[in-house]
Order: sequence, then C-alpha cells, then structure tokens
Amino acid sequence: MRTQVAIIGAGPSGLLLGQLLHKAGIDNIILERQTGDYVLGRIRAGILEQVTVDLLRECGVNARLDREGVVHHSIELVFGGSRHPIEIDKLTGGKVVTAYGQTELTHDLMDARQAAGLTTIYQAANVSIHDFEGGKPVVRYQKDGATHEIACDFIAGCDGFHGVSRATVKDKITEYERVYPFGWLGVLSDTPPVSPHAIVYGNSPRGFSLCSMRSLMRSRYYVQCPLDDKVEDWSDQRFWDELRRRLDPELAEKIVTGPSIEKSIAPLRSFVAEPMRFGRLFLAGDAAHIVPPTGAKGLNLAATDVKYLAGALIEHFQEKSDAGIDTYSQRCLRRVWKAERFSWWLTNLMHRFPDTEGFGQKVQEAELDYLVNSTAASTALAENYVGLPL
Amino acid sequence: MRTQVAIIGAGPSGLLLGQLLHKAGIDNIILERQTGDYVLGRIRAGILEQVTVDLLRECGVNARLDREGVVHHSIELVFGGSRHPIEIDKLTGGKVVTAYGQTELTHDLMDARQAAGLTTIYQAANVSIHDFEGGKPVVRYQKDGATHEIACDFIAGCDGFHGVSRATVKDKITEYERVYPFGWLGVLSDTPPVSPHAIVYGNSPRGFSLCSMRSLMRSRYYVQCPLDDKVEDWSDQRFWDELRRRLDPELAEKIVTGPSIEKSIAPLRSFVAEPMRFGRLFLAGDAAHIVPPTGAKGLNLAATDVKYLAGALIEHFQEKSDAGIDTYSQRCLRRVWKAERFSWWLTNLMHRFPDTEGFGQKVQEAELDYLVNSTAASTALAENYVGLPL
Repeated sequence: MRTQVAIIGAGPSGLLLGQLLHKAGIDNIILERQTGDYVLGRIRAGILEQVTVDLLRECGVNARLDREGVVHHSIELVFGGSRHPIEIDKLTGGKVVTAYGQTELTHDLMDARQAAGLTTIYQAANVSIHDFEGGKPVVRYQKDGATHEIACDFIAGCDGFHGVSRATVKDKITEYERVYPFGWLGVLSDTPPVSPHAIVYGNSPRGFSLCSMRSLMRSRYYVQCPLDDKVEDWSDQRFWDELRRRLDPELAEKIVTGPSIEKSIAPLRSFVAEPMRFGRLFLAGDAAHIVPPTGAKGLNLAATDVKYLAGALIEHFQEKSDAGIDTYSQRCLRRVWKAERFSWWLTNLMHRFPDTEGFGQKVQEAELDYLVNSTAASTALAENYVGLPL
Repeated sequence: MRTQVAIIGAGPSGLLLGQLLHKAGIDNIILERQTGDYVLGRIRAGILEQVTVDLLRECGVNARLDREGVVHHSIELVFGGSRHPIEIDKLTGGKVVTAYGQTELTHDLMDARQAAGLTTIYQAANVSIHDFEGGKPVVRYQKDGATHEIACDFIAGCDGFHGVSRATVKDKITEYERVYPFGWLGVLSDTPPVSPHAIVYGNSPRGFSLCSMRSLMRSRYYVQCPLDDKVEDWSDQRFWDELRRRLDPELAEKIVTGPSIEKSIAPLRSFVAEPMRFGRLFLAGDAAHIVPPTGAKGLNLAATDVKYLAGALIEHFQEKSDAGIDTYSQRCLRRVWKAERFSWWLTNLMHRFPDTEGFGQKVQEAELDYLVNSTAASTALAENYVGLPL
C-alpha cells in the first residue's frame, strides 16, 4: 500500500487531520490499534475553543455540533461559599467556548470519514514506523495474521501518550513533566447539568470540584480525590454527597442526581516532549503533550497541532514549500507551553494541596480574591480559557 | 509620662504615623532602641506607590520628595537577551511609581518631627509593653540608667520584624512563612543609574538581576546569589562583571561602574502574622509582615497599614467610633495578602530556582512570553506594581 500521509491513531486528532488533508486532496490512511467502538468508549474532554469549532466547520463536520453544542458565555468560580462569574465573552470581545463531548465529536468525524470513503484500518497490531529520517518512510502493522506495509511521504503520530510514535523517538526527545498529588474522580450521568450555561470550578476546604456537561441531558461532574482512592470506594451516593458539600448552598440544592453511567479516577499530569518533528515524522496532540484537565485545553491543543500540521503538509504538496514543516515544532510548542502554563496555574489555584497548608493556602485565597475583583486578572483568565490567539 | 499613642520604632512607619496623628492633634511619643543615625544608616527600599507619596504630602513632608524623587512611568523585563517594557502608566490609566530612597524619606520625616517639637526617645533600652488587652496600656523602657514608664491609650508596634511588639504577642498569632533558596547581593554606588526612568528586572540563565536607583546620581543594583555566599566573596569587579552578564548587551554596555558605598547580602522571605490588632496594641509594617523585595512592596504596605491605623485612631479620638479600630486587622490583611501574593509571584517568575529545572523553568519562560504579549497580563502586573486600589 502507498499513501501520502500515514496517520497513526484514530482519535480526534488523527481523524481531524485526515479530514483536513482529504479536503485538500491529500491522500491518507489511518491506522488504529483498537476497534472503533473502543475509541468511542473513551470518556474525555468536552469544551471546544472557537479554533476547534472553526476547524470542524472547515471539514464540514459541524451539523450536529451546531445543533447540539451548548455555547458557554461564562465560567463560574465557587470559593468561600460564594459564586463568582467570569464573563468570558464580555472580557474577550465576544469569544466563547462550546460544550460538546469528545465522544460525539469523534463519532461525527468517523461518520464523515466513512462517508468520504477514506481508509481507516482498525485493530492494526504491532504498528511500527521506519525510515522517517530519510525520504521514504514506511509503516508496518499486523492484521489478520499477516504483516502489512504502507509506504508514505509523511507519518503523523496522533496516537496519544502511550502510542508507538513518541516511543519510537524516545532517545531523541527531551521530556518535561509535573505530576500532581491528587486525582479526579469523574461521574457521567444522564441528568440535566446543574449549570447548563457555565462550567463551575469549585475550590472548597474539602477540595476541588467541577460541574461540567456533555449536553443538556448529560452531566459530567468531578471531585478532587486522593490518588490512591479506588472507584469501588465511591458509591454514587457518596459521590453526590461529596460534590454537594464542595459547592455553594444554592448550587448544591439544585443538583439533579442519578445513576452514574461512567465513573473513573484519573491522575493529573503535565507533560511535554520536545521537539515535535523528526524528519518526516510529526507528533500531534497527546502523543507530544498532556495537560491536567483543569483548563479544558487537551483536545483544543491537539486541534491546533493538527491545524498547523495540515497547513504545513498542504503547503508542502501544493506549494512545494517546506516552511510550515520546518517551523511546525516551534510553532506548536510556543502555544503548547502557554497552555501548559495556564493549565498548571489553574490547577494550582483551584485544588487543595496536601503540602501547602499555611502560606500556600493563604496565597491561593488572596489570588482568588484578586482574580474576581480585577478586570485585568479576569481577562487574563478568560483569554486563556477561550484560547490565546494563534 | 503620659501620651495618647505610644509608638514603638522610629523607622518610616512609626515616623509617618506620628506625623499623621500630630496633624490631627493626637499626642504621641516615639520610642526607638537605636540612635537616629543608626536608623538612617539602614539601606532599604526606594520605590514609592502613589498612596505613599500622597500620605507624605498629607503630612506636609513632600518638598524634597517633589524635588528629588524620580517618577517612573514604566518598568522593564529583560529575558532571552531582550528588553520588554511594561508601560505601567498607560496600562493603569496614568498611575506611576516614584524612586526615592527610604533613607531620604526617613530623614525628611525625622526633620519634620523635630521641627514640630515632638518627642522621640532614641536609645530606649529594654522596651516592654503591658496591659494593652485592658484599658490602660503602659510602655516601660530604660534609659540613662533609669526605668521609665509611659501611660497611653494605644500602642503602635512599628518596630519591625525583630521588634518587641510582635514578640510580646507571639502566643496569640498565627504565622505564615515562605523562604526562598537564594539571596540578593546588593550594591549601592554613586554612579548615574543605567536606567534612570524604569526599574529593570532581569531573568537570565545566570539568575535574577535588578537595576534600580535612589536618585539620578545614586544607583542600586542587585544580583541573585546563593544564600551561603559571603560579601567578602564579591569584589566590586566581580559584582559588576556578573551584573553585566545578566543583562542584555545594550544595557550591559551602558552600565557606569564605580566603587560600592554599601554591599550586602539579604535573604528573601515572605512572612505574615495574623491578626494585626490585640486590644489596644496594633502591629504595622514589618512588625506584622515581610515581603521579598522583588515587588517593591515592603515600605508601601507599611505606609498603607499606617494610613489605616491613623484613620482608625483619629476616628476613635475625634468621632468616638471604634469602627476603624475593630476592622483594622482585617482591612490591612486583605491588602497585605494580595501584596504577598504579588511579591511571591514576581519572585517566582524572575529568579532561577535550583530545584525547578525542567518543567518549572519552561513554565517560567512561557509565562514571561505570555506576560509581555498579553495586554491583560501586563495590566495585571502593572496594577499590582503601582498598588492595588485601597
């Protein structure tokens, strides 16, 4: 087999890249280790920056998003028992974010790929990538008992944090990491969200909480928990009780509870690998960087990587210029590090840390007090939340 | 002896408070452990917020300040070999800071106190304070071989971090502290400042540097150094060479060097004691809180404490209301913690930390990049630098 761009990974990054390249007449094949249903079963982010919405529109994958996505004009910070709205649209000259589950977005992109008759090879085992430092990269994989090979011009590593792409170049990268001393216990439930038009971030003496949503009938809630807690420790009832205790009385009263349809504990991590390009291999999204979910930046950073990468490849094939390819890593990383900083800052601001009682806790309270009372500080939060300019 | 307010400490806080009370017809005595010359010999801060300038004007102690103080409309951040101005006046609707040495300010306040014929008792040994939780506070001290006693209505503890006032109530306070893993090596020299109209904050791979001034003919420079360095390790030549290496080439070229007239190493500390009032005893300035000097907040916070305290005492004596007294601690601490947060943040942003190579360093670089390219973030810096609204 031969294609122009071999894409490793059929998550949102790979699918989005495939669609953008296809629109530009660039042939691509996606290889995915799992089944399509497995990919759809992953519960992930749900807040889209405008740049991400625009990219989906560019691909023509926006019909359901336009219908079901819920635009958020503000977020809310809850601390000291009170709610403090941050009106992100007013503070940023009209920019907003859109709540739309990553699962739904992946579904839409899969449908579009299928409708366009593009090749996605699911359950591709033992994927390996070769010769990307030279001019003729090759991807090998096993399926149905046979080894297959794809010759290509470029390889896009969109295969996430545990994928083969970064692992293949692990001797050539510098890694930066920060781990946090807590996890997030998340519950998905088919109940109307308590705050359907603003994500609520809570900082209480009992720890962080987050009231988010996937649609007007599907809620996503989180509470900060110790890293060694087990999901089995948390009955639905215990979760709802704990969430209520971390909110202000009015929100706590309003929460509609129901059986969890998914419940999991995730650690929080900041991670960046540099560089993001190795000859004809590019890393994009979680394959190159991870943010703690606090700032809702993971999916949006991946989308920006893909935007830069699609642009660079289109420039290569259509304009015979490698300028975009040569600056890909640098352009991505500048944006990545700003989003890493923002996610790290918001994580530090909103969580309770076991080791920073005393001075650290008082500084956190002073910063929250300053943040909601300063237009400049609120604007800085808002402009990061909607996504810094490209 | 009897007075209305006994003030412990003849530094700028105590002198300013004495002057404000005197203007309102409230009798006060200042007790100082050292000589006047010793107090004047302390080299300290040199950047005044407008609120501090206004207070000095209110006391009528502004003639020399108006003549010799140098208004700064901006500060500069130097990193990555480039200079980035932050135009604090434009970003804050016209607010500025004024460079005027604390020594000069203390001198002016001393002169004014003497001219007004007010009592300052220097070399008062073994000062002790009593009965401030009841209605009849007493201050005792020894001088010239005799024990003396002052009966008063209130005691103002303006005697700094190591003074007797906080020590006396040490069982009643909660202390918050952060120490930093480096010090500042400072040099004072009678040379024209390299940047006479903007304080320069430098972050280089060799560490932090600061180009400041006391007047158009007196410069104050600092470099971050290991805490265990000794002044003897640093010849003037070594200091100037090191400072030059931490600046951009243009500034490095322009520095006029000369013999140091003072050279010292100071540790950096964040410290807050709560509360700041104990019956009829009030703590003000360094007696209650310390900031690292990075944000130039120490003297200005002390001035704000004194403003609130003078207001509260005047209200008590003239309007027979204790509202100001009862809210003194809370009002001060809300402002103090915001300044502590700012000073801590700017210290973290501008210094090199031995233990945060890797992720921490990259986040610092991303924040600097964001800060100088975002109007909102620059404004947040500027509004803190000139002083948040009272």
